[in-house]
Amino acid sequence: MQSIARKHILQIKPYIPGKPIEEVEREMGLKSVIKLASNENPYGPSPKVLKAMVQAAKTVNRYPDGSCYYLRQELARRLKVSENQLIFGNGSDELIVLATRAFSDYGDEVIIARPSFLIYEIASKVSGATIKFVPLKDFRYDIEGIKNAITPKTKIIFIGNPDNPSGSYITKAQAEDLLKSIRQKILVFFDEAYFEFVDKDDYPDTIKLMKTYKNVITTRTFSKMYGLAGLRVGYGIGDAQVISLLERVREPFNINSVAQAAALACLKDKAYYEKLLRTIKAQRKYVYANLKKMGLSFVESVTNFILIDVRQNSFNVSQALLKKGVIVRDMGFWGLDTYIRVTVGKPQENQRFIRALKEIMK
Amino acid sequence: MQSIARKHILQIKPYIPGKPIEEVEREMGLKSVIKLASNENPYGPSPKVLKAMVQAAKTVNRYPDGSCYYLRQELARRLKVSENQLIFGNGSDELIVLATRAFSDYGDEVIIARPSFLIYEIASKVSGATIKFVPLKDFRYDIEGIKNAITPKTKIIFIGNPDNPSGSYITKAQAEDLLKSIRQKILVFFDEAYFEFVDKDDYPDTIKLMKTYKNVITTRTFSKMYGLAGLRVGYGIGDAQVISLLERVREPFNINSVAQAAALACLKDKAYYEKLLRTIKAQRKYVYANLKKMGLSFVESVTNFILIDVRQNSFNVSQALLKKGVIVRDMGFWGLDTYIRVTVGKPQENQRFIRALKEIMK
Repeated sequence: MQSIARKHILQIKPYIPGKPIEEVEREMGLKSVIKLASNENPYGPSPKVLKAMVQAAKTVNRYPDGSCYYLRQELARRLKVSENQLIFGNGSDELIVLATRAFSDYGDEVIIARPSFLIYEIASKVSGATIKFVPLKDFRYDIEGIKNAITPKTKIIFIGNPDNPSGSYITKAQAEDLLKSIRQKILVFFDEAYFEFVDKDDYPDTIKLMKTYKNVITTRTFSKMYGLAGLRVGYGIGDAQVISLLERVREPFNINSVAQAAALACLKDKAYYEKLLRTIKAQRKYVYANLKKMGLSFVESVTNFILIDVRQNSFNVSQALLKKGVIVRDMGFWGLDTYIRVTVGKPQENQRFIRALKEIMK
Repeated sequence: MQSIARKHILQIKPYIPGKPIEEVEREMGLKSVIKLASNENPYGPSPKVLKAMVQAAKTVNRYPDGSCYYLRQELARRLKVSENQLIFGNGSDELIVLATRAFSDYGDEVIIARPSFLIYEIASKVSGATIKFVPLKDFRYDIEGIKNAITPKTKIIFIGNPDNPSGSYITKAQAEDLLKSIRQKILVFFDEAYFEFVDKDDYPDTIKLMKTYKNVITTRTFSKMYGLAGLRVGYGIGDAQVISLLERVREPFNINSVAQAAALACLKDKAYYEKLLRTIKAQRKYVYANLKKMGLSFVESVTNFILIDVRQNSFNVSQALLKKGVIVRDMGFWGLDTYIRVTVGKPQENQRFIRALKEIMK
């Protein structure tokens, strides 16, 4: 059947998923492995959110609400946008795919930073577009490089803001500079998955920007700060016309009903998530301080993960950490051969990571 | 931004989702509206399935297992196929989309029966392919018509088996006839969403057929008989090479973790679902008997829904039923101007439907 598949699909590697932690533990003869590899929130849902999920679980025999009616109302109110400016995705991953399905085609070009979130690349490739990679400069987006990469064929520019895996961000001034200097017929896709962790005054307000620049779309997610990664719910905010184009390529029941209920409950449990955010920020400082003590450099992060230069082969370090029951992300794949990316976990998890890293670095 | 969207997307109507039942009730001043419109299982999850969901809900801060490891193992064992012959989708809807993303392109043709499940058409349109519709004949798939519609450009044939909205099925002999007489470079997509309801000896065993015909893919779902429509989990079975092509266009974390846990628990709670199946089949007989008493004709169904000729404008009948708090599907959209499709519900729901219909038919 390969001969009848769309040809460029054959150049995409099938995704090889990792095994569940339980299986890793069994195979390696380990107990209580901790995972600091996927930038997850280390804390489970709040009691109120759990209650909402249990309630929703009782009626999963019914199709989910295809419009995310109640979640949409609540988010529109909070973000001060119209309901038709919102779209929901099975994780914000899906919104990346929808953007490429609606806008990018054979012969088109898509601009992506490198390294950046892998799904930008895969989704763009599936669409048949050509990708122009713009390397990060000192672990930050190179706005001039992006401008220079634009051609008449450019359809989408993906901006991870904050960026993954670097943890850096582009400023308000940079975002405005980019939007001003390019034509309004390029979709500028701001992926703000880590938005809630950012506490910088010069971080851009893209919802404000899209009033002037109709070509801006912003995505956020309940997977990170709100800790609903397992449930898959992200959302996009954009001009109503952009959203309507994405709606045409969305599957009608893409957001499961437990996710809808949980996300709505998250929004209403402000106290829990504010406390959680304070804990994670304090823990980020703890990890920073210990890395400094060890003389290791890292990229200053506005997210819940840190890109660390371990100054030796990162694959070996990751494997040594794994043997001590700590899973981190080896950045060798990205050509960052001495870098690992580690998620800020619970206090005891971070202590264990620091202790393990110290032992390995000796 | 319309000018930079992929042109054929503009011909697709954005999906306009219905409002939640609670909103319909509020707006119409109704109480306890029953929904017999979406071919859902009327019963909630079994206690064991609910327990599995609650357990999974506690760790939704973690990403779902991208391989559906445990669910995959269990299904492979039961279906007697290799693990790499399985793929999972966010509902089997998503598997339809993946097939079009992997196989169908501009200039290609896709064959779809009419009326049939709407997502075949939308997904194919998004891919840029041309659709050849083959009308049902006496509410059954017209195999000769499908054969005649094939051209050198044909890439996919969608076969809803059982079909929605007719409730009919194609036989083993018909399936073999079709597969024998076409070239093996056409993907034949058997959508068996209602598989578990079928109790006919001449229904084809497509998993057996795919040993000979590598171009067969079969999809099934936990949304119907297993009552997990709200959670979105379907699966595809095919030759390992076909599956590997679909894997290239799948998003890595498309199946949420609560769905994976629930689906696995469903498979293990055989007694609950066998009882449920008996109830629904008995209720289907009850509805048949009452329709006959009313002198109404209907299509004999092997599913949990029935296509009924109400012999007057179906829109009016649906609206009259709605006013009595019973939601059914008006088939006017499909050109079946005197037909409604009704899901077999719980005994009291079916009684209420029959009573309401009788009052309206008077």
